[in-house]
Formats: sequence, C-alpha cells, structure tokens
Amino acid sequence: MKVAKFGGSSVASAEQLRKVANIIMDDPDRKAIVVSAPGKRSKEDTKVTDLLIALGEAYQSNQPYDNHLAQVIARFRDITSKLELSDQVLTEIKQDVEMTLTSDYSDELKMDAIKAIGEDSLAKVLSEYLKSLGVEATYLNPKDAGIIVSDEPGNAQLLDESFDHLLRLRDRNEIVVIPGFFGYSKQGRLVTFSRGGSDISGSIVAAGVQADLYENFTDVDSVYCVNPTIVENPKEITSLTYKEMRELSYAGFSVFHDEALIPAFKASIPVCIKNTNNPTGLGTIIVSKKETSENPVVGIASDTGFLSLYVSKYLMNRELGFGRKLLNILEDECISFEHTPSGIDDMSVIIRESQLPKDKEQKVIERIENELDPDMVYIERDLALVMIVGEGMNSTVGIAEKATAAFSKANVNLEMMNQGSSEVSMMFGIKSTGVDAAVKSLYKAFFE
Amino acid sequence: MKVAKFGGSSVASAEQLRKVANIIMDDPDRKAIVVSAPGKRSKEDTKVTDLLIALGEAYQSNQPYDNHLAQVIARFRDITSKLELSDQVLTEIKQDVEMTLTSDYSDELKMDAIKAIGEDSLAKVLSEYLKSLGVEATYLNPKDAGIIVSDEPGNAQLLDESFDHLLRLRDRNEIVVIPGFFGYSKQGRLVTFSRGGSDISGSIVAAGVQADLYENFTDVDSVYCVNPTIVENPKEITSLTYKEMRELSYAGFSVFHDEALIPAFKASIPVCIKNTNNPTGLGTIIVSKKETSENPVVGIASDTGFLSLYVSKYLMNRELGFGRKLLNILEDECISFEHTPSGIDDMSVIIRESQLPKDKEQKVIERIENELDPDMVYIERDLALVMIVGEGMNSTVGIAEKATAAFSKANVNLEMMNQGSSEVSMMFGIKSTGVDAAVKSLYKAFFE
Repeated sequence: MKVAKFGGSSVASAEQLRKVANIIMDDPDRKAIVVSAPGKRSKEDTKVTDLLIALGEAYQSNQPYDNHLAQVIARFRDITSKLELSDQVLTEIKQDVEMTLTSDYSDELKMDAIKAIGEDSLAKVLSEYLKSLGVEATYLNPKDAGIIVSDEPGNAQLLDESFDHLLRLRDRNEIVVIPGFFGYSKQGRLVTFSRGGSDISGSIVAAGVQADLYENFTDVDSVYCVNPTIVENPKEITSLTYKEMRELSYAGFSVFHDEALIPAFKASIPVCIKNTNNPTGLGTIIVSKKETSENPVVGIASDTGFLSLYVSKYLMNRELGFGRKLLNILEDECISFEHTPSGIDDMSVIIRESQLPKDKEQKVIERIENELDPDMVYIERDLALVMIVGEGMNSTVGIAEKATAAFSKANVNLEMMNQGSSEVSMMFGIKSTGVDAAVKSLYKAFFE
Repeated sequence: MKVAKFGGSSVASAEQLRKVANIIMDDPDRKAIVVSAPGKRSKEDTKVTDLLIALGEAYQSNQPYDNHLAQVIARFRDITSKLELSDQVLTEIKQDVEMTLTSDYSDELKMDAIKAIGEDSLAKVLSEYLKSLGVEATYLNPKDAGIIVSDEPGNAQLLDESFDHLLRLRDRNEIVVIPGFFGYSKQGRLVTFSRGGSDISGSIVAAGVQADLYENFTDVDSVYCVNPTIVENPKEITSLTYKEMRELSYAGFSVFHDEALIPAFKASIPVCIKNTNNPTGLGTIIVSKKETSENPVVGIASDTGFLSLYVSKYLMNRELGFGRKLLNILEDECISFEHTPSGIDDMSVIIRESQLPKDKEQKVIERIENELDPDMVYIERDLALVMIVGEGMNSTVGIAEKATAAFSKANVNLEMMNQGSSEVSMMFGIKSTGVDAAVKSLYKAFFE
C-alpha cells in the first residue's frame, strides 16, 4: 500500500488534477491520497489558503468580505466546471464556507476552520472527479480517518492514538482522499497543523497505515546533489537517507518540510519525492538505510549568513563547565547555535546571523566578559558553511583529503572544520565571498 | 633583567650547582634566581621533597623519624661539603628542620612548612656558594620578597598585592636567590603552592619584576616538534607562542607545568626553556606573539586514551538547549570534555577515557536516554587525538589538504575533525591503532 500526497502546485487547476487522477489510476497500490489546497497556477497567482486567510480576517474584523468569498468560490468553480463535475460539489463548498463563517467558534478556532476549507474542498473535488472517471473513491474527513490532535490552534500536535485508527484504513477497498493540514481535537474541534502541514498529514497517514512507500508529489523532478543556482545542471540524487537529507536540508536545500517527516522517519517508511508533471521520472527516494553506493558523497550543501563567536581563555579546558556556561548565556538570550568547534583554550560558536543581530551583540559580549572572564571574545560575520554529505564517508579513507584539496584549488582558506563521529557530514566554515568557487570546485572533485 | 629558575635536576648535586653558578655568572642580567629542591641524581634516587614528606608523615604519626631526618641532612651535607661551604649553612638547615618539626602549627600547616625546607635550604646553599665565588648574592625569603598568598595549605593562590612588592626587587644591586614553591599568608604563615610549584614561583617573580625574560632551566635542550618516541631525532622548536604551547601540551608534550605560566602569560613575559647541562643551546622560547615563520605548523601532538560519546536525534538542531543539556549531564557527573564536533542532528563529545570509566558509562547513557530522548547514544573507545599546531595556519591555504593527505597516505581514516576559528590547531580523531603511522606521515609532510 502506498500513500500519495499531492502538493499545492499539483492540485492548482483542473489540468493538474487530470494528471493527479492519472497518477492515482496508474498504480493500484496508491490507496490513500492526501491533498493540499490549490496553490499558484502562475507566479502572480494567489494560493487558495491565502485567499481564505484574507476572507477570515475581513470577516472577523467586520470588513466587507464578499470579494474575498467570491475569489475562493471562483477558484473551485473553475476547477469543477472544467472537470465537468455536478454543481452539487460547488454548492456543498459554498455551504461549508457560510457555516464556518457564522459558526459560534472562538476567533482562533474559527480561523483554523476557515484555513482548512482549501484542503477539505479540494479533497471533495478530487474524490468526485475520481468517481466520475469510474474509480471507487471516497472523500474521508480527518475526523473519520481518526487523526486526533492536541488542542493548539495553528500548531496541532498529533496524539499517538491516531495510529491505531489509521491502521484500519488498510481494510478499505476503495481509494480514500483525505484533506491534509488538519485534524480534530478530542473535543471534536477542527485544529490545523503549522503552515505546510499537508506534508505532516501525508507523513502521519503513511506511518499510520504502515505504508510500503510514502510518495510526495511536488513540482521538481528530484533533489539535486548541489544548489543548481551555483552549478548548472547538477546531478540528481536518486536515493538518500533521512540523515543525509537532514544534513543537506541544513544549508541551501529546501525541497522539503523536514519536520513533517518525523512520523514517517519514526516508522521507517521510505519517502519518494516525485514530480506530478513528470511522474515516470525516478524522483528521489529517502530511506532509513541504504546500500553503500559508488560515491560515498551524495551531496554538497552551502549557505551564507553565519557568524562565529570566538572565546579564548588560557587554561579554559581545566575549567569544568566553561563550555556549558557559554551555551547557557546564549540559551538565556534565546540564541540557538549550529556548531562549536574548539581548540584547547578556545571555543568558536557558529550561529546564524539572524539569531544574533548587531544590536544584541554588545549585550552578549558583555555577559560573556563579565560571567566567564575570558582573555578574548569577538564576533566574525559574513561566514558561509559548506557541507559535504554522505553516510558512506565514514568507511572511506581520503574524503577529507579530496574535499580540502578542492578548497585549496579554489584558493579558499578554511576558517573552521567540524566532523563528528557519525561522519554523515563534514562541515567547513569559510568566508562568504569564497562560497561559489568552493562549491564549484567540490562538485568537480566529487561528481565530475 | 632576567629571572632564572632552576628545576630539581639542575640543583640535585654539587656538580649541578657548579653549572648553575656558571650560568648565573655568565649573564649580568640574571638578577633574580628561583630554585627548586634537589631532585634525583639518578633514576633510583629520591627527591628531597619526597624525603621531607616521609619525615613529616613519620613525625606526625609518632613513628621513628631519625632515619628520614638523617637522609635529608645527608643530601645537603653532600652538597655543602663538595662545594666547600662553611658548616654554618648546614647547622642552620638542621636547626630549621628541628624548629619546624617541633613548632605548634596545625598538622596541615606544619606539613607545608616541612615540604618547603627543600627549596628554602637549597636557596641558602646556592647564595652561600655564589658568595664563596665572590658574587654579590643574597638569600631572600619569599616573605621578604613579598610573595603573599591565600591561606590554603598545599594549594596557595597568589594575591595580587604581591606584584607591587616584587617590583621593588628591581632596585636591588645584588643577585637574589629565592626559594620556590611557597609564599606567606597575610597572617605570616608559610603556605605551599600545588606540587611542581617552583615553576609557579619563577613565573610570579618574573611577572612581578617585569622581567625581560623568564628562563626556565631544566634537563632537556628544547621542545621537540613531535613526540621523540614516535619519530626519531625530530626537529627542535626554537620559538612558539603561549597558545601553541598550550595546544601542544594537550596531547603528548609534557615539558612544562603550563598552569604555572599564567602570571608570566598575563604579563606577556617571554619564557625560555633551557638545559642546565647545555646552556649555550638555543632552547625554546615561548612568546605572546611571534613573526610568522616559514613553516606555519610548529608541531604535531598526539595522545591516546580518548572516547567519543555520540548522541543523535532527528531535528536536534531545532531544539534550543539540547547541547547545553547534554553538557549539563556530564558536568553533573563531574566529567570534563575536550571537544564537541557535531552534525545537524548529532553531537560527539570527546572525553578522556579516565574521565568516564566503564562503570560510570551505564549511568551516563541512561541519564541521556531519560532526559534527552535521543534516537541513538553510544560510546566509542580507543580513540586517539592528533593535533597539528601553529598560529600561522590561519592565513595559509592548503594546510588541511596537506594534513588530510598525510592521513590518507598512512591509510588512517578520520573519525572526527575539529578546527575553531582561531586556527591555532586542527584536531583529528582517529582509532588508536593508527596513531604512530599517522604522526610519522604528518611529520614527513610538514617537517621533512
């Protein structure tokens, strides 16, 4: 059994939904379908979820909202008419919107219910369309599917009992179409996940039904092994592990909402990223473990906008708790850090520049000076991190040599290095100005 | 003005003291001399300090102590007779011992006073000997020199006011000979530094008199750039910075009691390590800053006996405080760590095996599992750290390439890497079995 999730661009128009239906019909194992709300049809278009938020805000602040409502209905009418569905679907959607707006929910819960209309309506449309094509399909409300969540509007957390309910879906004969993005609290109230939450729903359903595969259909063919804005036409990654994906997602790769994958990760469900517009392409598959491949390196990630907070003190390493105290100060100031490469008497804390804006700098430095009495503290900005990623690296002699040689060839000095004993990644800290040259040189070394 | 400190082997016998006197007379700038107690004359010999400790322990536990006392006196008699000094010196030493043993000090303070007799007596002997050679010299008690310390027997901490007193020594015309290892509390009680504390005294006097140079005479010609038990006849280091010395001392280099250097370090006094048995040799000089030399790498240090504590958790880096909490658990269990190289979702804590014995392992792992809910925790033992050290590395492209290539050539896999933004050192974690091959290969790459 496969669970297929279709993202906003995959369900943005009637034309896209025809592709989706073909994909579903193409493989009888695709039995549970999770959908987003219709996304943008072109760069200038507006996502249905954003139209719904505008509608909800206008309604709740007693502003005119007819225009917003009309826009939402128009998007669905455009789809249902082109797919030649009966008027009943559209009438039901209209009634849903009216009922939700006039319900006696609290403001927060009402907003959640309004936002969820996009996914919910699209799931109804898709199941009707599948039926019209002669496919046995049913719209399944998350409440009936058994997706039970915590009572936190806009940030629902899944309750574990959901998995028992979802497992029963395996016994169904027909295809079920489930709207993504929301579940129901124990009190029976609709509550949404955080934004991008359709990925969470897909991952939850895949884990719940113990799927053989969770297919995530989007609008890219696959994950590339390096940022395509730096290297032209880079190689595609056909297979990578969860850990590798996480390391890559860290710097420059943003194909995927990786927090969403937790349920699938915990249940060891393989995840496939595919393109709705090119469904026969191989895509990229994410697995828990994989056979070692020829190239121990699967990808190169890079990102700018980091800084290094450097602290040195003679005999630092004899002072039990020094590192912990330094991290405590940062935590106190709500600054999260990335890595902490160190010497015997110094520690560099790598932090995203957004975490430590210039106006906070003085306070942090003063606290470190007062509380830790160091010999020196300073901040170096405009740093970039470059990561070489691949689980195979840990058993291969010479990867570090190849990588550092690539930096030398690009004439880029290494400010920092960091590699833990997992060896899924090697991190190199360099000056931002060198990042393009370094990444190109590394690509050449590992992929050409 | 130079401050010269002579270690235990340099003052172990009359023969050695003749060398010391020659060294002092050889340079009129050597105006303040600090001495240890007589050390071993051969491998089987016993240090005078250890004889004194045995004497004190016997006396305090009401055991016969005549034999111990006789041994102490014999050592000094051997020296004074061979140096043809008057009997008065020896008589004074005998009286000192008797007075100290029978004093009404508390047990702890009495032990401090007994231990200090070695340095104190030797300083008297040396100043008498210098006078006998026609040199204007005076024994100077630390109390009269103004070395004021905290009231912690066996672990005295210097009080800052001492520096003002010591500065007055600059006005003296004669050479002063000061016993190392102890100072006086504000109440006028003798209190010793921690063991090896003559180095502390020398460093304090050098900082106090604002010496141009602090010479530390010992029994090695210089610091080698690599462990001579791994590489035969390695190159000598002529000059290194405090930071470089610290990084080297971390793993395998033990020429020096580096805690002792704090006063000299803070006052930016250059320190020279020389051999009493080869005083015309260049020695090794330790400075705050140095000119960049040809070779940006000054030394290679290595040590075995490390372990890596590996913790991984999906989305670890989104969890504010995870790293700090992990370090907190270690601190709670009184385990100090060396480095913490990390990936995005994992952290390796490098710890000396002595800090985390096998019987403590289970408890630490359980605490991590219960308090941090990680996906995986494990400990890997039998690791070695290899450090490439040199302040010049931070402006030189290609050092990491050269180093990692040397590991590859030795066919040694890199388990971990770590380099902070100071770039005084690069750390490589490897399996212990590979350490000799790796160090030889690195020496070849950087020094041959």
